[in-house]
This record gives sequence, structure tokens and C-alpha cells, in this order.
Amino acid sequence: MELVLRNQEQVLSKIATSDGHGENSAYFDGWKAYDSDPYNPVNNPDGVIQMGLSENQLSFDLVQEWVLSHPEASLCTPEGAREFKDIAIFQDYHGLQEFRNAVARFMERVRGNRAVFDPDRIVMSGGATGAQETLTFCLADPGDAILVPTPYYPGNDRDLTWRTRVCLFPVICDSSNGFKITREGVESAYYKAQDSNLRVKGLLINNPSNPLGTVLDRETLTECLRFTQDKNIHLICDEIYSATVFRQPGFVSIAEIMQENLSRCDPNLVHIVYSLSKDLGFPGFRVGILYSYNDAVVTTARKMSSFGLVSTQTQRLIASMLSDESFVEMFLQESTRRLGTRHRMMSKALAQVGIGSLRGNAGLYGWMDLRRLLKAPTFEAEMELWHVIIDDVKINVSPGASFHCSEPGWFRVCFANMDEETMVVALYRICKFVVHNKESPENVDRRKPCQRRSKLEISVSFRRLKDELLMTPRSAMVQVKE
Amino acid sequence: MELVLRNQEQVLSKIATSDGHGENSAYFDGWKAYDSDPYNPVNNPDGVIQMGLSENQLSFDLVQEWVLSHPEASLCTPEGAREFKDIAIFQDYHGLQEFRNAVARFMERVRGNRAVFDPDRIVMSGGATGAQETLTFCLADPGDAILVPTPYYPGNDRDLTWRTRVCLFPVICDSSNGFKITREGVESAYYKAQDSNLRVKGLLINNPSNPLGTVLDRETLTECLRFTQDKNIHLICDEIYSATVFRQPGFVSIAEIMQENLSRCDPNLVHIVYSLSKDLGFPGFRVGILYSYNDAVVTTARKMSSFGLVSTQTQRLIASMLSDESFVEMFLQESTRRLGTRHRMMSKALAQVGIGSLRGNAGLYGWMDLRRLLKAPTFEAEMELWHVIIDDVKINVSPGASFHCSEPGWFRVCFANMDEETMVVALYRICKFVVHNKESPENVDRRKPCQRRSKLEISVSFRRLKDELLMTPRSAMVQVKE
Repeated sequence: MELVLRNQEQVLSKIATSDGHGENSAYFDGWKAYDSDPYNPVNNPDGVIQMGLSENQLSFDLVQEWVLSHPEASLCTPEGAREFKDIAIFQDYHGLQEFRNAVARFMERVRGNRAVFDPDRIVMSGGATGAQETLTFCLADPGDAILVPTPYYPGNDRDLTWRTRVCLFPVICDSSNGFKITREGVESAYYKAQDSNLRVKGLLINNPSNPLGTVLDRETLTECLRFTQDKNIHLICDEIYSATVFRQPGFVSIAEIMQENLSRCDPNLVHIVYSLSKDLGFPGFRVGILYSYNDAVVTTARKMSSFGLVSTQTQRLIASMLSDESFVEMFLQESTRRLGTRHRMMSKALAQVGIGSLRGNAGLYGWMDLRRLLKAPTFEAEMELWHVIIDDVKINVSPGASFHCSEPGWFRVCFANMDEETMVVALYRICKFVVHNKESPENVDRRKPCQRRSKLEISVSFRRLKDELLMTPRSAMVQVKE
Repeated sequence: MELVLRNQEQVLSKIATSDGHGENSAYFDGWKAYDSDPYNPVNNPDGVIQMGLSENQLSFDLVQEWVLSHPEASLCTPEGAREFKDIAIFQDYHGLQEFRNAVARFMERVRGNRAVFDPDRIVMSGGATGAQETLTFCLADPGDAILVPTPYYPGNDRDLTWRTRVCLFPVICDSSNGFKITREGVESAYYKAQDSNLRVKGLLINNPSNPLGTVLDRETLTECLRFTQDKNIHLICDEIYSATVFRQPGFVSIAEIMQENLSRCDPNLVHIVYSLSKDLGFPGFRVGILYSYNDAVVTTARKMSSFGLVSTQTQRLIASMLSDESFVEMFLQESTRRLGTRHRMMSKALAQVGIGSLRGNAGLYGWMDLRRLLKAPTFEAEMELWHVIIDDVKINVSPGASFHCSEPGWFRVCFANMDEETMVVALYRICKFVVHNKESPENVDRRKPCQRRSKLEISVSFRRLKDELLMTPRSAMVQVKE
């Protein structure tokens, strides 16, 4: 066995024999915990509820209805099949013209038509994952660094660094100002990276932010643009949640900021990563988009898109769907309305048991503050709390550490990947846990299982919580059962 | 302008500012020549005919018929739409179980059920392009080398070397033995690479071969397996044309050879690259498959598949289609029958004007021997001839040099990417050119355009050629018109 392993080290690449993928984190462990014991209201009511998956499942009925009333959008219907051959053999890395046009137009619409997108700059990739990697391959050499504000999406490590051999360098943000990105923070990281002999090639920002659930304001965006221009480095804007903003302030794209500053900025340094996985909820369709204002990047990235082209079957469907502007209009309004309702449901439940969250207005998740439940302000304590939540409360939320957060005690809670009934059960579990924990904080200590279980009669009323969350006016929702 | 360019060099990666993609070759130039003046029987009868694209368009009627009679295979029909949501959100990098099962079973069927494929080793990728890159990232570090027999598919340079920074090292094959791979040839390349201080990590073989249109025989495969095992390096088998064998000898997969030699071989060193782009003719759907017998490679490659997952919309369709075994059986028989007919049509026409080809039995192309039309046995003369063929004969065939062939004068001619009418026109043009050229070889000299044009009355009869090729028994097909 040992011989085989030694030979593997010898015959495989360093990538295959080391741990650069970053899968060994609580973020992914939580998914596995869910996979091994998934909640089901009928078959497994005590199973783990998945709140660690940033999926948008709230508006599929709208899409399904559209699909059924537009059979010509599919290659597999009598109305569309005559084009089966032409679509199945089409593998040009520019993509179907109708697809690029529709995506560019959709991106404009999502940005309130305040920005213009040129279909010829739309480059396809395998999801935002592929777009990030492609862009990194175009912008940086092995050993170079990209700055990224914390907390940030765990997949960035895989997408930007794993195969490119580029590294990410953190810009530390914290709760003192609501995790806002500041010029000082970015500048400090830049010089620190240089002191470590790293050549900084860019700054990656995520707007709206995953995991924060907030949008970047105009000033922050302008400052990021100015900073990167001053340093002659790239500004990469991940805008994959742009159509999930459900409350003011509205979404401002870097495209708008750039257009406003065109006279004093070099567009060659600005790039947008987009996808339909979150805004439309189609992660399975793998529609990633790289939009660059740099011609050389567009040309090179397009050649690279051979590694992750969007299936033409899917291009065709998306082209038809997004070309239907009245559908798009209706979908965007209704989808954000539903996300807003779901977000309020979550915030309300948490607030009533005294749990705060960052004031979010976008995304498919909230950034929950459990600092006061920690036994100590450390990441060890955060991990301990996380284990209790996943093992006993049976909810998979993602701890801040997996987002490289600088402060222990924050957790990302996804709210759009389940139906309303499951959401109520999940919130009930959280509330029950918090109330219980408030009464007896020592229960978080995993070394006293017997004592812990004996106090579980302190509880909240599921029926009351449900009525309350589903908008029936009622009195105080959470109470200690006697 | 110069300033901008200098800044681009400074701010972009070496990949983006150098020419590693390999697009600057006659292989791709020919595509561009076609794109700028595409033949159309009605609108542009003097345009360029595309014989440089290895596409399989001969059996789409069968697929279309199947699709229309199986509406449940699509998410976009009343019969399938209720699963729209579940499929659209599914992004697990294992892929749909039904998809992996169906692909594994299909691979077995194509290999005459003489090999077994484990669905759990099926890893998805963005076409064979993605599979080759993924595999290279797993097997080799930057600077390492993979051996590859010539002539080989031009895309290999992009797929295996561009972003991985691995290099390909040629194993020279030539026409003296029909371009067969020999142990001596492989060994010689291996030591030559080592002499150049390259660490050789593997041997890539392509079976059936693109551009040769031939299958590798059992002995060659066994020898390749033995060699790589002896040297403790990887054997990568690109089998993307496995279902295009239209004549004996039949296809033998490395999977069979390995199973026969299991006791004296380490399966960890064997990997198969597959795709549905050629065998089914769906390049637009981007279904690439990496099948490895090495657990660590399967695990790592699966993580990498995030960069090139197959759209679940497409997975679903393919799963249904390939699970219909009687359709698969009928399709494979009919598809290879049609490929054989088309191949015979081409060989017959060429033979009648004295042009030979390598005796092919597979693939979507023939390997045409135009050595005697060269003014000199050099690649410059090959390029000169190619320019005449594309500019005057208005046919895009791909010169051997673009396949890294060691001998000038060979050209790949694709025969399955057009309808029969166009094929007849294409063959007529080639025959006319050859007859004309036989009479007046100096016409290949591009410096005498007037003289050349004046002799064009020497010709062949289009009607006769057509009758002959489309199987009407007739006398000699090609003659000089008077």
C-alpha cells in the first residue's frame, strides 16, 4: 500500500498529490454532513437541513410556466427539433449570436439599463467558476497575487489559485464598519503583499457580497476603481448576485462607475464575472460569463472558453428565454419580491430570539451574528459551536472561518434553497437552540451530553412560530414551554 | 498605441501575451478562409468547401426522430418539465447517476462489450478538450513532457500544454510502415526527451487516429502499454472516434488490452479520454469524459470538473437517449454504415485520378497522399500546394504540417461534415484539379496565374462523376473534356 502511495506521489502532479483545492473546510464538510443525513419532512424529519447551499429555488414555477408555453425554445419539441442538428454541431467559441445578444441585454436590464454591454465582449465559461479561472490565467502568472476583501466565497481559492498557481492575498474587513472595504484596508494589504515579495496583479470584489448579503455602495466602488487604476492593477468584479437585490439601496455595477469615470480610467483593467446560476437559479446549466473591457483578454479568454463552453442546447434555451423581455421583467420583479419575503422571515425569527444579522439587502443568505454564543472569541470556539449546530441542531450553516472572516462568531445562513415549510422547521430549530442556550450556555459544551439533553424541555412553540412567520398577526412568537 | 501595448505586456499574464494557444497554423487558417467565403450551392457556388472540420453530420435524422418520439427526455416538454427545477439546480460534480450509468454502458457497447466501465470512474469535462487538460493537470507538472506520435491532432497543443505548461514531445512516425507506432520510435523519443532534460510523464495515443483514419492494432496497443509500464509513466488513450470504425479490423480499446494484462500491469497508469462530439456528432453539447483507473486521478479530476461540467439539461437528454439500448444499437450500425459509404465515395473518386490515401477504416476523414503534386519534398512546397488548393480549388483540407507530420505532402480530408451533393462538388473540384495538374504541373506554380487560367479547359465531367459516386454503374468517371 505504502509503495503504491509512494509511486502515486512520483507519477502524479503536485496538484493531484497536494491539497490546493481547499475542499477540507467546514464549508464543504457541512455539505457532506447534509448528504449523509438529509432532512425530509416525511422520511427523515430529524435529518440535517441544508442552509449551506447558496441556491435560488424560489421562482422555478415562473420558469417552468414559460418553458411550457415556449416549446420553440427547445430542440426536443416538434416546434424546435428541426434545428437539432444545427445546434448540436455548433461549437464555435463565440457562442450563438442570439445567446450573446440576449445575455448582454439581460445584464443591462439587471443593471437598470444604466450600463451598456457589447455582445462581442461576452465570453462563455463553465459557470462563474470557469470565468474566474480563465480570467486569472489571463491576468496573472504563477506566484502573482490578487487582493480579495474578507470574508469571501470559499470557492475563490479553488477558482483563482488551484490550477493557475496564483495566490489570493486578504484585505481584512471587520464588523466595526459592517465589513466595508476601505481604501486604507486595500492599500495596507497591497503593501503587505509587496513586502512578502508578491507581485500584486489585481483586486477582486464581489458585489453583492457572498457571504455578507450586502451591495457595495457607489463610493466604495469608485474607491476600488481609483485604487486599482492608481496601482495599474486589475479590478475584477464578481457580480453573480446582481439580480438578487430585494431592498434598497439598489445594485450599482462597476460598469456604471466605469462609464462615469471613463475620461480618467483605463478600461483595460476592468473585468466583470457573471453567471446565471444565482440570478436565475440554474447552476446545473453552467452558464458562466466573463465580460472584459480589455480586447486582449477577450481574445485570449475566448480561446480558453473551449475548456468550458456552454452546451448549445442550453445556449438556445437561455437565448429564447432572456429575449422575452416581458418575461424577464416579470421574473426579476417577482423573484426579488420573493427573496425579500424570505429574508424578512429569517431576520424576524432570529431577531425575536435576540440574534442579530448584518443588515442585508441582497443575495440568497444572511450573515448571522452568533458571537455571544461563543465560549471564547476564537475560531476554535466557532468551530465548536458549528459542530453543535450541525450535530445537535441538525442545521448546516457555514462558519465565518470558511469564508476567511477575520472575526469569529459569524455564520452564513442560506434561505432560498428550500420550501417554506422546511424554512420554518429550520428557523424553529435555530430559535429553540438559541433560547435553550440562553438559559443554559454550558450546553454548548460538548463534553456534557447528558446534562445537555436533560434541559431540552425548554423550547419554543413550532405552531406559533409558523403562524408568526407566515404572517398571521399573533403575540410574541417564542416562549419557554412549561 | 505602443504605450498601451507595453502596458498590456506588463499587466497581463505570459499566457495572454504570448502565442501558446497554437491558433496560428494552417489548420485554423483554413477554417477562417472557409468562414470568409463559405460555399453554398445557391448563393455562393464558387465559395470554399469546408473539408477541414472533423464533424459527423451523417446520422442526425436518426437522432431527431428519437428525440421527437421521446418527449420525456427533455425538460422543456409537458412530459419532462416537472423535473425542470431538480435538473436546473443539480450541480454535483459527480453528475446525474443516470448519465454516468448510460455513458459507461454506451462505452461498453461501442467496445463490443469486451470491456467493463465503472460509472463511478466517469468524470465529466468540457469536451475531450477539457478532459485532456484536466488529465494533464493531474499527471504532470510544468516543464514535464508527454510523448505523442506524429501526425497528431493540432488541438493537443492547446489542450495538453497551453495552461498546464507541460510540453509535448513527438514520436516520429512515417509512411514507410503506414505511420505505425513502434517500440523503437517511442523509446527513441523517450531518451531524446530525457537528453533534453525533460521528465517524461506519459505517452498519449489516439485510437482511432485523427488524422490517419486508422485503428491501432492489438500488438501496437500491447506494446504501448508495456513500454509505459516499463518506464512507470502514464498511458493516455484518446478514444473519441471509437464508434466511427466502418470497416475491419474492428476497434480494440486499451481497456480490453489492460484487462487481458491485468496481472502484469499497474492500472493506475492508464487513462481514457472520451467524448460524444464525434461518435454521436454532438460537439455543441460539450460532453467530455475522462475515465481513469487511478483513484487519485478520479478524485482530483472530479474536483476539477467544476471548471467544465456538462449542462444538466444535456446530461438528462443524453442519459435518456443512451439508455435506450435498441436505439443505440440501431444508431451505431447505421452511422458506421453511412460513414463507410461516404469514405468509399471519397476513396473511389481520388483513386480514379490516381490519388492514393492511407488505407483507413475509421474516423470522419481520410489521409490523402499528394506527395507527387509537390514541387519539392518540403513543407514550404506543401504550404504552397495548400494555398493553391484553398485559394483556387476552393477547398479547405488540412496540410500534414499542421498535424506535426514528419513527411510533407499529406493532407487530411474530412468527409462527414456535409451533405452528399456538396461532397460530390468537393470531389469534382479535387479531381479536376488533379487531372489538370497532371497535364500541366507548372500550374501549381502560383507565379503564373495567366498561364494557369488558360489551361483550365482541361476538366472532368461533373455529371459523370456524380453518377459514378452515387453508385450508378458507369464507365470511367473522369476524363478530359474536349
